[in-house]
Amino acid sequence: MKIDGESYRTIWPAEDGWRVVIIDQTKLPHGFETVVLESEDQAAHAIRSMQVRGAPLIGATGAYGLALALRADPSDAALAASYDRLLATRPTAVNLRWALDDVRGRVAALKPAERAAAAYRRAAEICDDDVATCRAIGEHGLAVFREIWEKKGRPKRLNVLTHCNAGWLATVDWGTALAPIYLAHDSGLPVHVWVDETRPRNQGASITAFELGRHGVPHTVIADNVGGHLMQHGLVDLCIVGTDRTTATGDVCNKIGTYLKALAAHDNGVPFYVALPYTTIDWTLTDGIRGIEIEQRDPRELSHITGRTADGRIETVGILPEGSAAANWAFDVTPARYVTGLITERGVCPASREGLAGLYPDRAA
Amino acid sequence: MKIDGESYRTIWPAEDGWRVVIIDQTKLPHGFETVVLESEDQAAHAIRSMQVRGAPLIGATGAYGLALALRADPSDAALAASYDRLLATRPTAVNLRWALDDVRGRVAALKPAERAAAAYRRAAEICDDDVATCRAIGEHGLAVFREIWEKKGRPKRLNVLTHCNAGWLATVDWGTALAPIYLAHDSGLPVHVWVDETRPRNQGASITAFELGRHGVPHTVIADNVGGHLMQHGLVDLCIVGTDRTTATGDVCNKIGTYLKALAAHDNGVPFYVALPYTTIDWTLTDGIRGIEIEQRDPRELSHITGRTADGRIETVGILPEGSAAANWAFDVTPARYVTGLITERGVCPASREGLAGLYPDRAA
Repeated sequence: MKIDGESYRTIWPAEDGWRVVIIDQTKLPHGFETVVLESEDQAAHAIRSMQVRGAPLIGATGAYGLALALRADPSDAALAASYDRLLATRPTAVNLRWALDDVRGRVAALKPAERAAAAYRRAAEICDDDVATCRAIGEHGLAVFREIWEKKGRPKRLNVLTHCNAGWLATVDWGTALAPIYLAHDSGLPVHVWVDETRPRNQGASITAFELGRHGVPHTVIADNVGGHLMQHGLVDLCIVGTDRTTATGDVCNKIGTYLKALAAHDNGVPFYVALPYTTIDWTLTDGIRGIEIEQRDPRELSHITGRTADGRIETVGILPEGSAAANWAFDVTPARYVTGLITERGVCPASREGLAGLYPDRAA
Repeated sequence: MKIDGESYRTIWPAEDGWRVVIIDQTKLPHGFETVVLESEDQAAHAIRSMQVRGAPLIGATGAYGLALALRADPSDAALAASYDRLLATRPTAVNLRWALDDVRGRVAALKPAERAAAAYRRAAEICDDDVATCRAIGEHGLAVFREIWEKKGRPKRLNVLTHCNAGWLATVDWGTALAPIYLAHDSGLPVHVWVDETRPRNQGASITAFELGRHGVPHTVIADNVGGHLMQHGLVDLCIVGTDRTTATGDVCNKIGTYLKALAAHDNGVPFYVALPYTTIDWTLTDGIRGIEIEQRDPRELSHITGRTADGRIETVGILPEGSAAANWAFDVTPARYVTGLITERGVCPASREGLAGLYPDRAA
């Protein structure tokens, strides 16, 4: 997508063909800086420090990290050690393990001298595949957007509400929930996005608003409390969000607060869509509320906020009274009955076992 | 209620019998300071600058402001001018107009020399009446709490979720939604409160958490996004909130986001109560969503946050990317069908025309 007119991905090879460039996302939204990775160690740091975030992007960074490692030392011992070190950076990230396994599997049988080049090629393919997947989600979503817009008599503004960040900065390009928004905007559909700020980490207010603003998509940031009121007054035409994990029955585990927006959408007859690549589907799960343990994160994410002072300094402030405890659940589960449809790289389906099995007959049990 | 063991109201006469003391609520939650009012002008400033807030407390401050004015100059001309100046401090506050009308009506017929003393007496009565009203709401609410606690088999923790601040700092004492919580805690019911931080102004994270913490009530601050997840997992026994305006049919207009919690409560079978004095009931309204225009406030309330830095300075930081717009609706409407009951100073009733008419046969049409 674009930043002030210039096209970017979130990770790309430098002009010298071996170094790797990323956007330092810890500086967003107040600063835009790129970082050049020259070693496995720097790639590991980028993942660990969340300079890169989002499962697909973490996977791609891991793949390039292994390529950088093999360029420095292509021996069997170095390959094994680098794999372990990179995997340990974010141990719960499924895409990271998948990407590292994939690259290691392809280079292990090669002669050491050929390994680095093969790893670079495969890392680039992983990136391209992710872009293609997200783009396909975007195309299928665009058809949904267009249909709603036509059905409503082509209004001057198609109001889309989204929660958290499932945008291009979480993937290599396009994003998942935001992919149809970018395609809609680029193709002339008059899309306007209500951006939930998404407490406590504020990924909506910072990253989604940054993405949309820099690409030129009209948007308005709102408190997470506002969406229900907007829906009661006909100011939301559809909702679209991403998902961290989707059950085989269509329950959706996504950023905390997603469930509340789905309830409001249901109460007001507003379509509620979830965009996802097949990698988020957990075919072993049938009940999201009982089956998915919800991570509790550091309460400091709620009790402290970082922003920019009037004179341009970045400061962190505490907002709770002394002695008050805080609790910070990171995700919630939206039952399938509140999801209008799942938008995947293979098409759109109902949020149900039958719906998913129809799109993925090869994977569903 | 208590602050670190000492009993307070939000406004009280100083020991000299003529000056008036308030808590400077703009300093909460990071500082606790009282301010002594010696003139009408200082009382007007206290209201205008939101050192005092909450409709009942604003009314009481207006009444004392008129008493201070009459002490300085009890003439007819001064009474008229003071009334106008105090009314202009928060022109939309119904309680302020009511209190000023009440005091003026009682002193106008008196000799100037008797006016100030009569105004002080009436201001004190207004305060005592508000305390009695809130206390009655608390007693009726306590019965509800106790019944739920008994029905659940006397659990070790009775988990109550509240949104925004309807506590003693918004009234003269006790509060509305928090009154049953204080009474429950003081009477040994093991109440624990989930405090919605209540973006964008964070009245939950700052004022409600401050109140509860200083009085010693166990509580945990959560993001507004979290309540639905807690209810899905049986971690909320009931919800209780205040209201700014209640229709004759039981629709409730309260702080933005209340509606989303009511939806989640309904979806999970959690009782959702609203506490109110009769003054919030608008007998002319029958459809809250269509009939109540929702105030939009300064987007800066969303885009900027004030808190305390690690080294103790109070700083305000901006959290949005440059160029991103924000919108800030202050209230939403919860349809009566999602409200389990209304808790008033006269008792508990269904959120319906019949329910309210049963408690207020003298007022309902």
